[in-house]
Amino acid sequence: MKAAIIGGTGYGAVELIRLINKHPVLNLNTIISNSQAGGNISEVYPHLTDSIEMPLDPFDVDQICENNDIVFLATPSGVSKKLVPPILGGGVKCIDLSGDFRLKSPEQYESWYKDTAASEDYLAQAVYGLSEIYSEKIKASSFIANPGCYPTASILGLLPIVKSDLADYHSIIIDAKSGVSGAGRGLSLGSHYAEINENIKAYKLGSHQHIPEIEQILQDESGFPITISFTTHLVPMTRGIMCTTYVNVKESISTDEVIQLYKNFYQDHPFVRVRPKGCTPSTKEVLGSNYCDIGLYVDKRTNRLTIVSVIDNLVKGASGQAIQNANLLFDWDIRTGLNDLPVYP
Amino acid sequence: MKAAIIGGTGYGAVELIRLINKHPVLNLNTIISNSQAGGNISEVYPHLTDSIEMPLDPFDVDQICENNDIVFLATPSGVSKKLVPPILGGGVKCIDLSGDFRLKSPEQYESWYKDTAASEDYLAQAVYGLSEIYSEKIKASSFIANPGCYPTASILGLLPIVKSDLADYHSIIIDAKSGVSGAGRGLSLGSHYAEINENIKAYKLGSHQHIPEIEQILQDESGFPITISFTTHLVPMTRGIMCTTYVNVKESISTDEVIQLYKNFYQDHPFVRVRPKGCTPSTKEVLGSNYCDIGLYVDKRTNRLTIVSVIDNLVKGASGQAIQNANLLFDWDIRTGLNDLPVYP
Amino acid sequence: MKAAIIGGTGYGAVELIRLINKHPVLNLNTIISNSQAGGNISEVYPHLTDSIEMPLDPFDVDQICENNDIVFLATPSGVSKKLVPPILGGGVKCIDLSGDFRLKSPEQYESWYKDTAASEDYLAQAVYGLSEIYSEKIKASSFIANPGCYPTASILGLLPIVKSDLADYHSIIIDAKSGVSGAGRGLSLGSHYAEINENIKAYKLGSHQHIPEIEQILQDESGFPITISFTTHLVPMTRGIMCTTYVNVKESISTDEVIQLYKNFYQDHPFVRVRPKGCTPSTKEVLGSNYCDIGLYVDKRTNRLTIVSVIDNLVKGASGQAIQNANLLFDWDIRTGLNDLPVYP
Amino acid sequence: MKAAIIGGTGYGAVELIRLINKHPVLNLNTIISNSQAGGNISEVYPHLTDSIEMPLDPFDVDQICENNDIVFLATPSGVSKKLVPPILGGGVKCIDLSGDFRLKSPEQYESWYKDTAASEDYLAQAVYGLSEIYSEKIKASSFIANPGCYPTASILGLLPIVKSDLADYHSIIIDAKSGVSGAGRGLSLGSHYAEINENIKAYKLGSHQHIPEIEQILQDESGFPITISFTTHLVPMTRGIMCTTYVNVKESISTDEVIQLYKNFYQDHPFVRVRPKGCTPSTKEVLGSNYCDIGLYVDKRTNRLTIVSVIDNLVKGASGQAIQNANLLFDWDIRTGLNDLPVYP
Repeated sequence: MKAAIIGGTGYGAVELIRLINKHPVLNLNTIISNSQAGGNISEVYPHLTDSIEMPLDPFDVDQICENNDIVFLATPSGVSKKLVPPILGGGVKCIDLSGDFRLKSPEQYESWYKDTAASEDYLAQAVYGLSEIYSEKIKASSFIANPGCYPTASILGLLPIVKSDLADYHSIIIDAKSGVSGAGRGLSLGSHYAEINENIKAYKLGSHQHIPEIEQILQDESGFPITISFTTHLVPMTRGIMCTTYVNVKESISTDEVIQLYKNFYQDHPFVRVRPKGCTPSTKEVLGSNYCDIGLYVDKRTNRLTIVSVIDNLVKGASGQAIQNANLLFDWDIRTGLNDLPVYP
Repeated sequence: MKAAIIGGTGYGAVELIRLINKHPVLNLNTIISNSQAGGNISEVYPHLTDSIEMPLDPFDVDQICENNDIVFLATPSGVSKKLVPPILGGGVKCIDLSGDFRLKSPEQYESWYKDTAASEDYLAQAVYGLSEIYSEKIKASSFIANPGCYPTASILGLLPIVKSDLADYHSIIIDAKSGVSGAGRGLSLGSHYAEINENIKAYKLGSHQHIPEIEQILQDESGFPITISFTTHLVPMTRGIMCTTYVNVKESISTDEVIQLYKNFYQDHPFVRVRPKGCTPSTKEVLGSNYCDIGLYVDKRTNRLTIVSVIDNLVKGASGQAIQNANLLFDWDIRTGLNDLPVYP
Repeated sequence: MKAAIIGGTGYGAVELIRLINKHPVLNLNTIISNSQAGGNISEVYPHLTDSIEMPLDPFDVDQICENNDIVFLATPSGVSKKLVPPILGGGVKCIDLSGDFRLKSPEQYESWYKDTAASEDYLAQAVYGLSEIYSEKIKASSFIANPGCYPTASILGLLPIVKSDLADYHSIIIDAKSGVSGAGRGLSLGSHYAEINENIKAYKLGSHQHIPEIEQILQDESGFPITISFTTHLVPMTRGIMCTTYVNVKESISTDEVIQLYKNFYQDHPFVRVRPKGCTPSTKEVLGSNYCDIGLYVDKRTNRLTIVSVIDNLVKGASGQAIQNANLLFDWDIRTGLNDLPVYP
Repeated sequence: MKAAIIGGTGYGAVELIRLINKHPVLNLNTIISNSQAGGNISEVYPHLTDSIEMPLDPFDVDQICENNDIVFLATPSGVSKKLVPPILGGGVKCIDLSGDFRLKSPEQYESWYKDTAASEDYLAQAVYGLSEIYSEKIKASSFIANPGCYPTASILGLLPIVKSDLADYHSIIIDAKSGVSGAGRGLSLGSHYAEINENIKAYKLGSHQHIPEIEQILQDESGFPITISFTTHLVPMTRGIMCTTYVNVKESISTDEVIQLYKNFYQDHPFVRVRPKGCTPSTKEVLGSNYCDIGLYVDKRTNRLTIVSVIDNLVKGASGQAIQNANLLFDWDIRTGLNDLPVYP
């Protein structure tokens, strides 16, 4: 099976290259980069020297569709919405890693992204690619809106309790921490080494575009309107997201019982690992892998559940999850090409 | 004025050495280290070579009291409670940086510290050294329990809203992040470089000994019983604490109004800097200084206040605040020796 | 093929677990840890939770030899020399990752390691496992002394020029920089986060035990006595070694010519990637992979060659090279299980 | 005494602000930033909020000269050469932190900086501000070319041996490592967090513009033509430079003797601290301070001296040395405002 990557010089793309390289069925056939077309991927990423020597091609929808079975769009939000329609028109499967097709409501998109939304037609077609929850819809589809990094960690951490009827829906607070690769390879003072190293910074208080994405899924799955508090922090590390999430529980429940609830919920999902009591996951413990690890603690003093969920933002939070979705689209074992253990230490 | 430091080889002590060195009135006269007595401080800390060449002396209460006007105890919890009584008996002022005398209730101490408490006599004598709140009591005292690092950032962030009657006291959640120096110089896997670098880890969920310290002060200042949720995280940096604190507000209030409330509250307190709207502080922005910077945001969607408060855990969270307390004890300007700007970047 | 790891709780072992897990033929059958026998590997390394749940067994040579085809010793120097003889006696192939069998001269070992050497019999049997150079000897052997991390980067960087007769053998200076994982998981102030972060430190000037290992191979390959200057530095990162090596060249030669010399030398060696002119490798560009990348520059002003060689100390510098040697021992393609691209960024 | 800073938004400028703030005689009167004129310094550097609230003024030579006694130019190379002549014409003392006036030869400047040199008149006037060596010339001058960061560490490390006649002048190799703040606040992929973190990279092999600066001083002080090898590396930390320097010694000399030679050489220079035998300095041991620490080791096997010299690149390597030069210009004690101990850990 032949794959194309569009947006070939960002971190999402280079992680796709790494993962496709170890996938036994997918073959990387085309890398598109309008900004660096004519060059070679190993000039942009010297760690690929001698290993992946491929040209960077300009965007040409006919060529792409003729030569590939699946297209991964690792383009920024605002770009994908223009590229997806012609590619789908060419009969090729599409996985979009941007935020353009995740929100079902164009109004929400325009309010949070400060940009015009994609056409409603395509918004309706797009299946939200959280594989653990929507695998049946994904298998039946050919166009996937790959979830955001924060939403992946947040939603996987919250779903079992939110669907259990134990949660006070007004009480959800997600305190999220991310490594800096989540901000991409584009230059900004906020990703400048000397500003970030030996520093932790909260940013976009109350205005992060992942807020409506999390709320949309929690509402759909719970059947209740849910408004969350969500704070994002930049942590001096390259990879990793941790969500520390707080939910008031309506009835008394023990940590052991919550762990059992989560283990049951995720028993058929190999990429979610629920930790035993007292073992809280750290981000490094999933680095380079497609796992989402979850630790749980109920505080009897406050009747509040603390959920700690961690992912590698570039794998389970982006490119790994995209491969997982590709596996579903082609009806392969979901673990194909994603079996690696975390790189530790 | 002559000062002694007890526990001379830990990070609290070496930061006291740095700060006393730049203090115009205090002079470092004695460094006590039972474990390394006979050696020289520059052997333990080579960055002091040629600059601070002083012997490490064994603990001898008569010598200490005869030769010093003030004693800083940078000893671990469990040790200070044995050393303070004889030193006070020798007529010398004492500032204890450990947790031994912060909790007024011996039962609380024993429950959270898993150790026998100090005698009630001395617990009663000790004044909690949060200079911004208790300066009058401190001035009238000669024995100070210097606040913990997390409580300093948490309480300074919370006090204005907690004392305003706007806060829902059941809703307080503090999500705290700390650099690794807070764990001290003692070796442990939790401070081992390869385990901490490129990693973020939550620890001591629901069981951190700073929980009762924060609750005690919030209760005293509000007049209400307050039970908090408090989660601590280890972040890959050496210095800095950030508390991201969530409080439901009972009436509608704007971010601007909350900022004004905080500015009024801290107008006479030079070490607390309330940031303008949209300017959230990061830990590096106070590194090496005695500042506590506070950013504020009210989310109209949830009617919840987010407070971001940052300190350098070794300065305002320990040794700097100890110097600030010494300035009060001797009735000097509170800024004496503490005027430095943060080291940035 | 079944594999055992001895010394199962160190970083060398856990990296072997990661690599064996993705190897298509090798299967991890036994993990030996005397210090933690009776426990489970996932308790020692929580990132393996649910993925690798295996007991830690005590050392029992009969059991090991009966149940395994190959044994990897990830034990510290001083331990392997006792364990290897009985294992070889049991008819099982052995790859020792420690320094115990690398030096052919017992006197050298005793002088640099400050310990008694292994018996000469076994020293004679051991083949130095630098696969790029000694593949024929390795294939014919069943006992491999896996090279040290610094020697791997140093020797691969030097061999083409040393064997070319262009090098002034008296002029070799290796300035080496390593991430902290090279010091292992054992606790020490030198691996304590707050001492290493935001710091670079030179250590063991003139006394590093890898000096005689490098000299032994350079002498064997050149036929000349060679004495090097070698300085090691600890850099604030977890993985990676860079050797910046300086050699005076006897005749005028251009950077282009040296690059060609190196490309020719390594043309059949897929794990050594010689960079084009002007493209100097960084350690992150090989992280998590088995590559050794080499950059070259001849300074016409001084007639001196600068060689920059980088590896991941835990992969090509230890466990990856051990797998590469196992591939040779069993006569598999040398790339088996080692095809991964670097994890970047 | 009133001071102006030109180039007020870079790291050199903000470090000058920190140091002038603690200087007992210098007062910061003017901050010039053409790019951000009209704004306030605390908007550019929020860590100054409420502490240093000063406008950023456009460049106006009359205003500057009328209102200030000394001007610090923290402008990039290429800019200073245009600004210095009018300021000197206004009768104000000038300390230029850029490279524009360090090289006496315009040809050298043009060859290494790839730009036209400053006029020879002003090149002749400029005194190279390495205070330890040229204090008498500095005192007699009013225009100082403040040394580069790498040259400061390199030259201070080399001078005693170079002036001793023991050094083989053809053998000097400087392997230099720097924190990322040395690259300034301007955005580039080379300072992008995710590219630098967990990475070490060699750069500008053989072409760094500090090479002729080091050679010029070594030649002047030795009386011999000296050509060095000089390799620069970027290390994942914000502050700090380490030079590991190798020199062949012509006669047999012990480590103890070399240490004594250095101690004698620097006995009247409080900012250079020569370490005792076996105590090699690390960069963190001078962080935030004006010290240059030097460790020494003679390898009897190779008759080669290894010199490890460390500075904080923003203090002794830039702004601290500029203050030291201002102290000389005004004939104050050289330590004025520079007494601080390093910030450790």
